[in-house]
Amino acid sequence: MSQNIFSHIGIIGKSNNPEVRSTLASLVEFLREQKLALSLETECAEILSKSEKVNSLSKSKLGEQCDLIIVVGGDGSFLDAGRAIVDWDKPMVGINRGRLGFLTDISPQAFQQYLTPILNGEYQAESRFLLDMSIKRNDETISANCALNDVVLYSGDIARMIEFEVRVNEQFVYKLRSDGLITATPTGSTAYALSGGGPILHPALNAMVIVPMHPHTLTSRPIVLDSNDNIELLITSDNTMHPRVSCDGQKNFNVQPNDKICINRKTKTLNILHPNDYDYYHTLRTKLNWNI
Amino acid sequence: MSQNIFSHIGIIGKSNNPEVRSTLASLVEFLREQKLALSLETECAEILSKSEKVNSLSKSKLGEQCDLIIVVGGDGSFLDAGRAIVDWDKPMVGINRGRLGFLTDISPQAFQQYLTPILNGEYQAESRFLLDMSIKRNDETISANCALNDVVLYSGDIARMIEFEVRVNEQFVYKLRSDGLITATPTGSTAYALSGGGPILHPALNAMVIVPMHPHTLTSRPIVLDSNDNIELLITSDNTMHPRVSCDGQKNFNVQPNDKICINRKTKTLNILHPNDYDYYHTLRTKLNWNI
Amino acid sequence: MSQNIFSHIGIIGKSNNPEVRSTLASLVEFLREQKLALSLETECAEILSKSEKVNSLSKSKLGEQCDLIIVVGGDGSFLDAGRAIVDWDKPMVGINRGRLGFLTDISPQAFQQYLTPILNGEYQAESRFLLDMSIKRNDETISANCALNDVVLYSGDIARMIEFEVRVNEQFVYKLRSDGLITATPTGSTAYALSGGGPILHPALNAMVIVPMHPHTLTSRPIVLDSNDNIELLITSDNTMHPRVSCDGQKNFNVQPNDKICINRKTKTLNILHPNDYDYYHTLRTKLNWNI
Amino acid sequence: MSQNIFSHIGIIGKSNNPEVRSTLASLVEFLREQKLALSLETECAEILSKSEKVNSLSKSKLGEQCDLIIVVGGDGSFLDAGRAIVDWDKPMVGINRGRLGFLTDISPQAFQQYLTPILNGEYQAESRFLLDMSIKRNDETISANCALNDVVLYSGDIARMIEFEVRVNEQFVYKLRSDGLITATPTGSTAYALSGGGPILHPALNAMVIVPMHPHTLTSRPIVLDSNDNIELLITSDNTMHPRVSCDGQKNFNVQPNDKICINRKTKTLNILHPNDYDYYHTLRTKLNWNI
Repeated sequence: MSQNIFSHIGIIGKSNNPEVRSTLASLVEFLREQKLALSLETECAEILSKSEKVNSLSKSKLGEQCDLIIVVGGDGSFLDAGRAIVDWDKPMVGINRGRLGFLTDISPQAFQQYLTPILNGEYQAESRFLLDMSIKRNDETISANCALNDVVLYSGDIARMIEFEVRVNEQFVYKLRSDGLITATPTGSTAYALSGGGPILHPALNAMVIVPMHPHTLTSRPIVLDSNDNIELLITSDNTMHPRVSCDGQKNFNVQPNDKICINRKTKTLNILHPNDYDYYHTLRTKLNWNI
Repeated sequence: MSQNIFSHIGIIGKSNNPEVRSTLASLVEFLREQKLALSLETECAEILSKSEKVNSLSKSKLGEQCDLIIVVGGDGSFLDAGRAIVDWDKPMVGINRGRLGFLTDISPQAFQQYLTPILNGEYQAESRFLLDMSIKRNDETISANCALNDVVLYSGDIARMIEFEVRVNEQFVYKLRSDGLITATPTGSTAYALSGGGPILHPALNAMVIVPMHPHTLTSRPIVLDSNDNIELLITSDNTMHPRVSCDGQKNFNVQPNDKICINRKTKTLNILHPNDYDYYHTLRTKLNWNI
Repeated sequence: MSQNIFSHIGIIGKSNNPEVRSTLASLVEFLREQKLALSLETECAEILSKSEKVNSLSKSKLGEQCDLIIVVGGDGSFLDAGRAIVDWDKPMVGINRGRLGFLTDISPQAFQQYLTPILNGEYQAESRFLLDMSIKRNDETISANCALNDVVLYSGDIARMIEFEVRVNEQFVYKLRSDGLITATPTGSTAYALSGGGPILHPALNAMVIVPMHPHTLTSRPIVLDSNDNIELLITSDNTMHPRVSCDGQKNFNVQPNDKICINRKTKTLNILHPNDYDYYHTLRTKLNWNI
Repeated sequence: MSQNIFSHIGIIGKSNNPEVRSTLASLVEFLREQKLALSLETECAEILSKSEKVNSLSKSKLGEQCDLIIVVGGDGSFLDAGRAIVDWDKPMVGINRGRLGFLTDISPQAFQQYLTPILNGEYQAESRFLLDMSIKRNDETISANCALNDVVLYSGDIARMIEFEVRVNEQFVYKLRSDGLITATPTGSTAYALSGGGPILHPALNAMVIVPMHPHTLTSRPIVLDSNDNIELLITSDNTMHPRVSCDGQKNFNVQPNDKICINRKTKTLNILHPNDYDYYHTLRTKLNWNI
C-alpha cells in the first residue's frame, strides 16, 4: 500500500440530507481504514456522531488544522466551504451528492476509487481565484466578504430597475439601469452568470466577466475584464431603491445611494484537486447537455 | 371651426415634475379655449389649482364621467391611468414628458397641433388588451389586479432562484427554476420583457408572451401564446422563498408556496387614440435606435 | 374490428436509410393486414418493391389520390412532403425515424398501437399554416415556392453582411445589415429560428416571426406579426452581394439588388393528425431537455 | 517647434471614396509641412498623384521602410493594413472616414490637432494581438493567413448547418452543428462576434472567444479561452457541405471534410497609437449607444 501524502483530513457536508449523510458515513469509514486523522465540521459532526465519537471543528479551524478538505454535497456546499478555507491554502476535493457538479466532481458511488490515488498524491491540482467584495460608505468599509462564483448587485426591493455607475480602474464604463449586475469569476461563469447571458470563461483564465441583468439599454453586453482590474459600482444618489449585494448567492448585504461596491481579485487562491482523468470540457458537455 | 366630438376631457399627470406641470398648464389653457369641459385627476388638480378653480376627480371617476382622457407624462403614468380607466371604455391620449414614449406619443412642444384633429375626430384608434391577474390560495382569490404591460412573478427575497410550475389551459408546460417569469401583452413586449430577451409583439396581435427571467435551464425560451389562453403559475411547495407578483411594476403582491397566480386576457380593452400620421414602426425605430 | 375511415393510404419515406426502410416494410405489412389500399411515393417504392409489387406515385399524385399520407423519417422528410401535399387538403401523419421529431411524433417501435386508433378516426387533428414566397424582379414573379417552417433570406456568398429593407403591409419597418432574415411559422419557430434567438410560437397561433440573423444593430430583435400580414424584403441597390432565399432550407433561389421577396400566409393549411394523447408541451420538454 | 520622433510616414487609404481622398490630400499637405518623408500605398498614390509626384510603395514595403503608418478610412481598411504591416513591428494610427471606428479613432475634421502630439511622441501605445490561421489537409498546410478581428468558419454553400469538432490544446470540446464558428480576438469582439452573441473582451486581455453561429444545440454558448490556447476545428467526414474560412471577413478559403483549421495567437503583435486622451470605454459607449 502506498503512502498517503495527507495526514489530517477535514470533512464538510450538509448532513440534513439523507443521501449526503450516507456518503459521509461511508467516507468516514473509508478514511479510518486508511489510518488517517479525521475532523468533521461541527454541524456535520453532530449528526454523524450520535453513535460514535468524532473530532469536531469549525470550517475555519478545519482550514487551519487539516491538510486536505473533502466536501460532500452540491456546488453550493463547496462554495460555502471554499470561502471559509481559502485563507489557509489547503487543497479541497468535492464529492457530489447526486448530480455531477462543476466543483464537486467525484461520484459518490465510486469515491473510494477516485480518492485513493488523490490521497497518494496522484491528482490534477487546479487553482481558482476568488473575488474580494467590500462596501464603502463615506469612504469607510461597512461590510466585506469574498466570492468564489460571483458578486451580484441586485434590486432586493419591490420595484425592479436600479441605477448605478460602473468604473473599472477608476475609468467610467457606463451608467446602467437594470435589475442589477453579476461579476463572475471563471468558476462562476457557468453558474448564475450563464443564465444572465454571460460567456463561459475557461477556469485557467485570469479574467472575470460583468453581466448586466435585464438591462434597460439592450446593447449593454457582458464585458470580460482582466482579473486584476478593480471594479467599482456606485449606487447613484437619485436611486429610491435599496439594492443588495450577494456573494455566491449566500451572503447578502444592504446598500444605499452613494455607497460604493468594490470588487477585486483576492490574493489567495483556492487549490482544488481533481482525479487524474478529470476533463473540464467533459463536465461542460455533461452539464450543458452538449452530448444529446 | 370644426365641431369637437368630445365634450368633457379628463386630465392626468404626475405634477411634481416641473416639466409635466408646465405642459399641464398649457394643456388646460388650450382646452378651455376650445370651450371644453375639463376635470383634473385629484392630485394633479391640487398642484395646478393654487391660482385657479378646477374640477377635480379620482382617476376612476374621470373614467366614468369624461369622454376622453389625456395623460401627460411617461409611459409609467399612462399604464397607471390605463388600469384605472379601462373598465369605462373611454379613449385615452398620451402626451410625453420629454423623451418619446411607446404609449405617450404626442410631443409636448406641439401638442396643440396634434390634439386639434384628434378632438375633431381625426385620429387612428387602436385597441390594446390588458391581463387580469388573480392570486388563489386554497381555491380562494386573495388578491387581484390587472396589467397593461406585464404581470411579473419574481423572487422578492434574498436568494434568487424560485421554483414554480407553468400551466397553460390546464396543460403542464414546465417546472421552472429562475428569478421569475414575465407575462407580457404586446404593449408590454417592448418594455421589461424586451430586457429579458423576449420578442417584440405587434400591438394588433392577439397574443402574449411568457419570458423566463435568468432560467437555470438555458433552453427555457420565451413562448408566445394566444391571448385567450389561461396561464397558471403554481408556486411549488418545496419553495423556501417568498416570491412577489407585480402588475406593470406598479402594484405588488406577496405569494407563498401552493399559491396559484392566474393570468387571463381582460374582457375590456383600452382604446388609445393616435394622430393620423402615427406609425408604430417609426416609434420602434426611434426608441430602439434602429436609425443610427 | 372497427371500420377504417381512410381507404387509400399514401406512404413517403427516404428509403436509402436502413432504419427507415425497415419501418416502411413493417408499415406496408401492417396496412395490408388492415385491407387498406396503398400507394408509395416513387423513390420509396423502388427500393421496397424489389421483392413485391406496389403501387407507385409521385408525392403530388399521392396528395391527389390518397386520403391519408404517412411520412416515415425525420422532420425534414415531413416538411418536403407537406409542401407537396398541402394543396390537396389531405391529412398527414409522421412516424419518426429514431429521435422524436416535432412533426414526426409517432414512435417507430410502436406505430401499430398509435396508427390503429388514428385509422379508426380517433385522433387530434391540427392545422398548420404555410408561407407563400415569391421573388419579384421588375414587377414580374421570377420564382415562387412555399414553406412550412421558414423562408430564409441569407448571404449565399463570400462576404457576410447583406443589406435589405423590411416592409410589412407596405409600411417600412427597418433597413437591416445582417447575415439575413428568417421568417418562420409557428411550426418553424422551434427549428432554425430558435437557433437565431427567436421565440417559440404556439402552433395554434395565427402569427409568424421575423428573426434577424447576426444583425449589425444589436437592438434588431425578433418581431412577431399577424400571419395575415404581408412581408416584403427589398434587396437594396447598393448591395454588392448575391443573396439567396431558401424555403425550409430545402429549396434555394438566387436574388439580386432591387429584387423583392414577398412572403404571405398560404390560403391552404396542412392538416396533421396526432394520437389522442399527443401533448405539444411534452414534445417541447423532450426536445429542449426541459426535463433534465 | 518640437522634434518629430518619426521620420518616414506611410499612408494608406481607399481613395475611391471622395471623403477619404479629401482627407488624404490634407494629410499629405500637413505632413509635408512637418518636413516628414512620405510614402503612399500604391493604389492610394495613383489617385492622389495625378497632379503631383509622390513616393509609392506596396503595403508590405511601407511596413518595411516607414516608421509610422497612418490609415485613413474605416475599420475595414485598418484591418487590411494591419495584417500586411504586423510583421514589421511598425506603429499604426487610424483616421476615421466619417463615423467613429474602433480602430480608426482620430477625427478627420481635427486630425492635425491629434497627430501633432503623436508625431512628437505623446501618445498612448496599445498592443493588439492577431490570430494565425492555417488549413491542414492530410497533414499538409494548404492555406494560411492571419486575422486582427476574427477567423470565421462558415457554411459558404446552399444548406446552412455544417458539422465540425472543436479541440482546444488537443482536448475535445464539442461537436457542433451550426452555421459556423467565430474565433475572435479582443479587437474582433466588438465586431462580428458581438452580433453573434459574444461578450466584449477588453483589448488588453490575453484571451480570445469562440462564438457558435446559430448552433443547433441551444446551450452551445460562447467560450472565452486563453490567447495562447491552440484551437483546432475538424470538418467531420460525414459533412456534405463545402464550408469556408474567412480572416477578418476579407480573405476567404475553401475547406472540405477532414480538413483541420488551426488557430493560434500570432507571435508578433500590432502596435496602435492613440491620442493621449483616448478612452476605450468612451468609444464603446459611443459605438453601442450607451449614452442615449
